[in-house]
Amino acid sequence: MADSRPIGVFDSGLGGLTVAKALRSLLPNESIVYFGDTARVPYGNKSSELIKEYSLEIADFLMKHDAKLIVVACNTASALALDELQQHCTIPVIGVINPGAAEAVKTTRNNHIGIIGTVATISSKAYEKAMEDLNAEIQTSSHACPLLVPLAEEGWLEGEVTNSIVNHYLSPLNNNKIDTLILGCTHYPLLKDVIANQVNDETILIDSASAVARAVKKNLLDTNQLNDMDEKGRLTCFVTDIPMRFEDVGQRFLGSPMDHVQTVHDI
Amino acid sequence: MADSRPIGVFDSGLGGLTVAKALRSLLPNESIVYFGDTARVPYGNKSSELIKEYSLEIADFLMKHDAKLIVVACNTASALALDELQQHCTIPVIGVINPGAAEAVKTTRNNHIGIIGTVATISSKAYEKAMEDLNAEIQTSSHACPLLVPLAEEGWLEGEVTNSIVNHYLSPLNNNKIDTLILGCTHYPLLKDVIANQVNDETILIDSASAVARAVKKNLLDTNQLNDMDEKGRLTCFVTDIPMRFEDVGQRFLGSPMDHVQTVHDI
Repeated sequence: MADSRPIGVFDSGLGGLTVAKALRSLLPNESIVYFGDTARVPYGNKSSELIKEYSLEIADFLMKHDAKLIVVACNTASALALDELQQHCTIPVIGVINPGAAEAVKTTRNNHIGIIGTVATISSKAYEKAMEDLNAEIQTSSHACPLLVPLAEEGWLEGEVTNSIVNHYLSPLNNNKIDTLILGCTHYPLLKDVIANQVNDETILIDSASAVARAVKKNLLDTNQLNDMDEKGRLTCFVTDIPMRFEDVGQRFLGSPMDHVQTVHDI
Repeated sequence: MADSRPIGVFDSGLGGLTVAKALRSLLPNESIVYFGDTARVPYGNKSSELIKEYSLEIADFLMKHDAKLIVVACNTASALALDELQQHCTIPVIGVINPGAAEAVKTTRNNHIGIIGTVATISSKAYEKAMEDLNAEIQTSSHACPLLVPLAEEGWLEGEVTNSIVNHYLSPLNNNKIDTLILGCTHYPLLKDVIANQVNDETILIDSASAVARAVKKNLLDTNQLNDMDEKGRLTCFVTDIPMRFEDVGQRFLGSPMDHVQTVHDI
């Protein structure tokens, strides 16, 4: 079957383009409608009420654009609004927390998993709950890292300052002897090299983007909704603002220039 | 005369509380209505169109709350929306750029002034234009410092990492032999000690907050609108969201606990 409707992907800003990139790599035929809420980014420090309200508005937008499935690429929105989104939407909604948590539980050897993310994601304990449901033996250690998002957006992806900041956040997790670390924010894959240098040698990093892409593929296969046409899918991006340095930042996350970008007022 | 109407103060978030603090110190009898757009903070990377739209909405809100004068405590909004605000409002509107620029021009001895601020403020060249109007001899060197806002909000106000980041941003300005540096963002006064350590010995820092408070006092005196009652003024705060760590961050900027805080939806 050829279900040519697009996959809807949303994030508080442009960080979710790392998920769009993983989807394009695994499912090159699928079209993607990406929604980045750049006027209201970041979500990571906002209240849970506001994050839920924004997430439902965006889901409605993506359904109006005929999405066959919605990927919540934002860890913060996945942590705080996934239940509401799944109740609200008439199409499947996949967040980044459950696929990332499942990958981490499969990966750990000593059952001690670390999680880093925004203040909102870490406070929600969403990763902890997802992992406990999978394996009650899992121990977790988590740390909110508010400076990593601006560091990634600023493009300071290496160097002494970045190393010191990452080291500051990760030291307590290293001391707790984690062997697996979840990068619980779409911005963090950009800092993967620095993070890898600052964790204990045996620690494996879990980047949710590819785990999410696999979860999407499985869902579309199970529901017979894959687009099996030969044509390459199209990526259309909607944003709520064209902020300063938009193109630089977008390209950094997507790994290629952003085309077909439209600005949306009053979603 | 006793004009007991409040002074309206707004900022993209809580950073403008440094201006409220300076106003309360200089004009203790005046009541203040503070509006922090915490749901949409930060403004520093947003487009100028969006910054103008938000600023006008907030000015309408403050006029509805009977403000006798509006202080735009946000450098970014002052840089990009002051003209529109002054045309739109029926009461005086004072931004932070002109008072800060005038103070710097009075202070410099070698006519070479540095400016640090958000990407939007620095790109606007608002400080440069204001100083050129005052003295055509002034030379300027400026640098956008996007990481300083999250550093100040995170409360990393000293230490090795903060020193390295500040040093990275200030080195080019030091090399340009500035003798005066404008702290062109309401968050930066929190980092004043670190900044003072990282500039050349003879460089004087200009913090707009007290210059703005003096400009407000002058305006109220000139228009006979000072509140000369003996009672201490009241500070009422409206915010568009109660974000994570709200009280910590607010107290850091205001220097005392925030009372009388109300949340506003859909301004």
